[in-house]
Amino acid sequence: MIAKRGFASDNNSGVSEEVIAKIIEVNKGHVVGYGGDDYTGKVIELIRQKFGGECWPYLVFTGTGANVLSISAATNSINSVVCAETAHIQEDECGAPEKFSGCKLLSVETEDGKLNPELITKHLVGFDFEHHSQPKLISISQPTEMGTIYTVQEIKNIANLAHKHNMFLHVDGARLANAAVELNLPFEAFTKDAGVDILSFGGTKNGLMSAESVIFFRKELTLSFKYIRKQAMQLASKMRYMAAQFDAYFENDLWKKNASHANKMAGLLYEKVKDIPQIKITQKVEANGVFVILPKEIIEPLRNEYFFYDWNTARNEVRWMCSFDTTEEDIEGFVKKLKDLLNGKIK
Amino acid sequence: MIAKRGFASDNNSGVSEEVIAKIIEVNKGHVVGYGGDDYTGKVIELIRQKFGGECWPYLVFTGTGANVLSISAATNSINSVVCAETAHIQEDECGAPEKFSGCKLLSVETEDGKLNPELITKHLVGFDFEHHSQPKLISISQPTEMGTIYTVQEIKNIANLAHKHNMFLHVDGARLANAAVELNLPFEAFTKDAGVDILSFGGTKNGLMSAESVIFFRKELTLSFKYIRKQAMQLASKMRYMAAQFDAYFENDLWKKNASHANKMAGLLYEKVKDIPQIKITQKVEANGVFVILPKEIIEPLRNEYFFYDWNTARNEVRWMCSFDTTEEDIEGFVKKLKDLLNGKIK
Amino acid sequence: MIAKRGFASDNNSGVSEEVIAKIIEVNKGHVVGYGGDDYTGKVIELIRQKFGGECWPYLVFTGTGANVLSISAATNSINSVVCAETAHIQEDECGAPEKFSGCKLLSVETEDGKLNPELITKHLVGFDFEHHSQPKLISISQPTEMGTIYTVQEIKNIANLAHKHNMFLHVDGARLANAAVELNLPFEAFTKDAGVDILSFGGTKNGLMSAESVIFFRKELTLSFKYIRKQAMQLASKMRYMAAQFDAYFENDLWKKNASHANKMAGLLYEKVKDIPQIKITQKVEANGVFVILPKEIIEPLRNEYFFYDWNTARNEVRWMCSFDTTEEDIEGFVKKLKDLLNGKIK
Amino acid sequence: MIAKRGFASDNNSGVSEEVIAKIIEVNKGHVVGYGGDDYTGKVIELIRQKFGGECWPYLVFTGTGANVLSISAATNSINSVVCAETAHIQEDECGAPEKFSGCKLLSVETEDGKLNPELITKHLVGFDFEHHSQPKLISISQPTEMGTIYTVQEIKNIANLAHKHNMFLHVDGARLANAAVELNLPFEAFTKDAGVDILSFGGTKNGLMSAESVIFFRKELTLSFKYIRKQAMQLASKMRYMAAQFDAYFENDLWKKNASHANKMAGLLYEKVKDIPQIKITQKVEANGVFVILPKEIIEPLRNEYFFYDWNTARNEVRWMCSFDTTEEDIEGFVKKLKDLLNGKIK
Repeated sequence: MIAKRGFASDNNSGVSEEVIAKIIEVNKGHVVGYGGDDYTGKVIELIRQKFGGECWPYLVFTGTGANVLSISAATNSINSVVCAETAHIQEDECGAPEKFSGCKLLSVETEDGKLNPELITKHLVGFDFEHHSQPKLISISQPTEMGTIYTVQEIKNIANLAHKHNMFLHVDGARLANAAVELNLPFEAFTKDAGVDILSFGGTKNGLMSAESVIFFRKELTLSFKYIRKQAMQLASKMRYMAAQFDAYFENDLWKKNASHANKMAGLLYEKVKDIPQIKITQKVEANGVFVILPKEIIEPLRNEYFFYDWNTARNEVRWMCSFDTTEEDIEGFVKKLKDLLNGKIK
Repeated sequence: MIAKRGFASDNNSGVSEEVIAKIIEVNKGHVVGYGGDDYTGKVIELIRQKFGGECWPYLVFTGTGANVLSISAATNSINSVVCAETAHIQEDECGAPEKFSGCKLLSVETEDGKLNPELITKHLVGFDFEHHSQPKLISISQPTEMGTIYTVQEIKNIANLAHKHNMFLHVDGARLANAAVELNLPFEAFTKDAGVDILSFGGTKNGLMSAESVIFFRKELTLSFKYIRKQAMQLASKMRYMAAQFDAYFENDLWKKNASHANKMAGLLYEKVKDIPQIKITQKVEANGVFVILPKEIIEPLRNEYFFYDWNTARNEVRWMCSFDTTEEDIEGFVKKLKDLLNGKIK
Repeated sequence: MIAKRGFASDNNSGVSEEVIAKIIEVNKGHVVGYGGDDYTGKVIELIRQKFGGECWPYLVFTGTGANVLSISAATNSINSVVCAETAHIQEDECGAPEKFSGCKLLSVETEDGKLNPELITKHLVGFDFEHHSQPKLISISQPTEMGTIYTVQEIKNIANLAHKHNMFLHVDGARLANAAVELNLPFEAFTKDAGVDILSFGGTKNGLMSAESVIFFRKELTLSFKYIRKQAMQLASKMRYMAAQFDAYFENDLWKKNASHANKMAGLLYEKVKDIPQIKITQKVEANGVFVILPKEIIEPLRNEYFFYDWNTARNEVRWMCSFDTTEEDIEGFVKKLKDLLNGKIK
Repeated sequence: MIAKRGFASDNNSGVSEEVIAKIIEVNKGHVVGYGGDDYTGKVIELIRQKFGGECWPYLVFTGTGANVLSISAATNSINSVVCAETAHIQEDECGAPEKFSGCKLLSVETEDGKLNPELITKHLVGFDFEHHSQPKLISISQPTEMGTIYTVQEIKNIANLAHKHNMFLHVDGARLANAAVELNLPFEAFTKDAGVDILSFGGTKNGLMSAESVIFFRKELTLSFKYIRKQAMQLASKMRYMAAQFDAYFENDLWKKNASHANKMAGLLYEKVKDIPQIKITQKVEANGVFVILPKEIIEPLRNEYFFYDWNTARNEVRWMCSFDTTEEDIEGFVKKLKDLLNGKIK
């Protein structure tokens, strides 16, 4: 157990109190299972409103589940999926996309975790050639796993490329709220309106307990989806408790409050360390993560007090994630510890 | 939304207050994700104690998940799995077992949902014959989907048959607590000690929110399991909240209190209707379900007030499930309504 | 090696000389691989003509391949396939249909290997219910694995049932030629014209070396099929040699000559043994197989001289298959041996 | 149909006459199907002898089949496979490896199609981390798809790396004979003795009709393989005809005669064009392929007379493959045509 808050991951944090309150609120009486209840119905409608009306949301348990189901809905096993080398679907899902969809994943090296048409185009070959997996889906992460954020125009450019080749664009939005507050745009402006076809919309990393969703912006992709969700073991029986989490998420813009705070804390952390000569920030700080190269010898001592993960051990790069519950005191204590270690005051 | 409690399913009920309390209790500070936290560690140890010590439990989201992962751990795609025609894995998981494990499911007709060595033996053929899926797993449900319960000796007989053929025995225990209170035995007596190799141990249907587990009684089956769970999208990031549910489940024997009550309510319902001449009880009432053939014309009017599901529409058979929160008043109101309909007082 | 011809299987026989001749004929020069050559083009056209013109044939290596690809083209993993318990896809393909398509196979007990609407209907449930695999394909074998043959009307009845439920009808025609000569009808009369949607059309069991095909009677099922065939490892690089086999098959109606002979030999065998009191013929002899219950003690001695396979060891039932190269002398020698064993003259 | 021999692929050529002769030779009488016959038994023994005795060969239909089955035997779906970006399993099998094995393929950019420990090491991360596909297999092609050849030492280095990480080494030897004659070594010297664990050993591209094999050098990898081959639709019923092809292949070293000739023709072609200033040879010519960048405007006119494939259209790179039946006249005619086009004599 971690005695104090660390910077390991936004899923190491707990759950917003508003979420617990809403769970308690729905905990009465009997309701139909598997999402047939009125609570879920209301929340689906709420999500639709937040994403521009014309869309089809489905609740699932995990971000990996949301991504894999998105891929499965848009492809079949003869297809390929183009993604960044750092994408969660490529690096962090233990091959679930290949296992469940049967597709080939084609990854692209990128410095900042972002794809662009030029990088993608390398893999858009072999159409109509039966020996070659048929490219069908482009998947980007917003924010990326490197904490960077696509502009609306960048997303539009990729969407246009996808559609030109009769492909779909998927966004892994496990931390979409963090992008929304940074872009200062409504969700729809950089998803539906930018040409995104399918979205993994996350909540767990931003203060929910276990609630994610797949949102389709094209109805034809949903035709078999209720079966796919069930077959993929992502259909909750007591769905009302998942719905309750999203209900709390949107009530009084909890999502915005949480994400803004996490981003702000990352910004504060960045400000406090950016000029330290012995360390090097490796990515723009646009969301709630800070990527930094540290002197090797201080990594373990620092981690012992404030837990965080390595990102690239070969170059001593680590990742510091801020969360909705990170405090200014956390940052100050952490930066002090860091400086003390760098100055050799402690070890 | 159902205005009042019905008899549709034990997953239409809510969550025990003790469970919510425990969720609130763990909701503080940062802890390692994905089950690396101390809460989860403690609960894993707790489950081990309840199942005789030598076993390996893993938490998952759903009963379908627990079943499919159990199959995947014990087989590979060249194998077959023998089960009852009424098994959840055969009827109610949208083909997830075949999709995820690649196995062939071989089902057996049975009157009461129970398998026995004679029924199973029909499918234990073709060993070492490369054209034939190799039988590797027998899967039974305890209690069955028909609300009947295997004796310890019946389970031992099936386990012996399985082991004689170098196969494994899996138990789908989505409602295992209901069997335990009826048998009046500790869990291990009719699982581990009876020769069961893998168990799906459920909690959601007995007052938890969303918490199930796979428990292995053979260590060699667990070697790749942590990867399988992740790949199957059944690994929770904020695992402490799932652990909290099981913690509450075992504290003060909540599982026993809930299951005893549900069974007792089913027994009460059975007593009150068993002598009504116009209806026919079709299965022994050993757990928390009552299966009954009704006059066709009263099914809809009855359902309109107290929701329940059809079981076999061809013969007007329906299923009434009692839950941890079913009250004597619910039963009385329901039986009164039933009798009034049968007597033509109302329609 | 078997010294003389036996009655084990029609794939224990060799290859018609006309087939070898055609292979030699195409063995010159370079041609495009993977079926892009003119030989294959010609043969595809030939097959189309034999099946009523409007159809889409694809060549594959094996009968299992043809069946699995048929299923994969018509379904996705959320679907179920209804078949007889004796179907090759259920019994003899080591679970390839489940592995490759992800579907659930729902089998039906039948005495003579034939399905009918009443038997099938049991499995046509759960439509639109996300917990249940969605029925999408009915698969029958013509002739059946028991050597029985569907009439045109029987096929039409099943096709109508399938289409009424928005399902497809697949025919496993590994021995379709044997059915055609018995029915004395052109292929199309009991496939395309009877409402069949997909056909596995075999050649290997009737004198070819290794050449089977999938024939679609609905174009919409072919849209991704060239990729599916490649991905399923069923695309031959030197396709001309497979095409040559089918070319020989149709030239001078070799298929008819071979199948007629095999059926005739089975009829002769049947005539010669049907009145022997110690044995019992268990199935109508409509194609090239004879199913018979023998006194247990003569099975091994008889098999030692003329190889054949057990069918149902529990009741001492064996299968005798005749082939295109079975001779009257083979039959006579075999029957003599059988009678001698039954009469105790030898042992 | 191609009127004359071209340079498209070694599978555009026909079949050696010795192969046809052997097929005719085995075409008599009945033999047990599916490889239980004496012909196949003899050929399996023959292959073992050619590969150093202690190995386990299985015959299959296609090179894709051999590769996919090799992967399936050595991995399960939680694993990853490291290969070159140009590998057949990555580029030319329509995703069959992912579909059938469920694994993730991790590809590496390489100039000459060859992997080495440094290139591979990038992907050997995340061991024991459940979020990451577990690296289990390295797959190299010998010769590579670029016509280059690994030395024995290079293979040993990769094998050592694999074994150090508890991984296996697979070789895609679709053209292994072309490597053997170039290396002037017995097969075992650069497979079994160099630490290779599994080999796809091809014949079709070197004068056979349709015969490939998977050869295991570790018995533990074969335990379920007969079922895997059947389930993967790669088990021939009339196996004797596939065995006959390999029998011919080894008799009088037909494999060596064919491969030597093809390599020699590629060498001749190389010699005749290497000094032409307007074109650029892009790869070492070590086997039977020549890779060359041509002026764009002559590609189509040249191809119209002698068929060949593009390799990299972005840089006008094409591939010329020589075959066992390529003649010096073919080369001379081709080079003349090429020069005439370059000199503007024709267009």
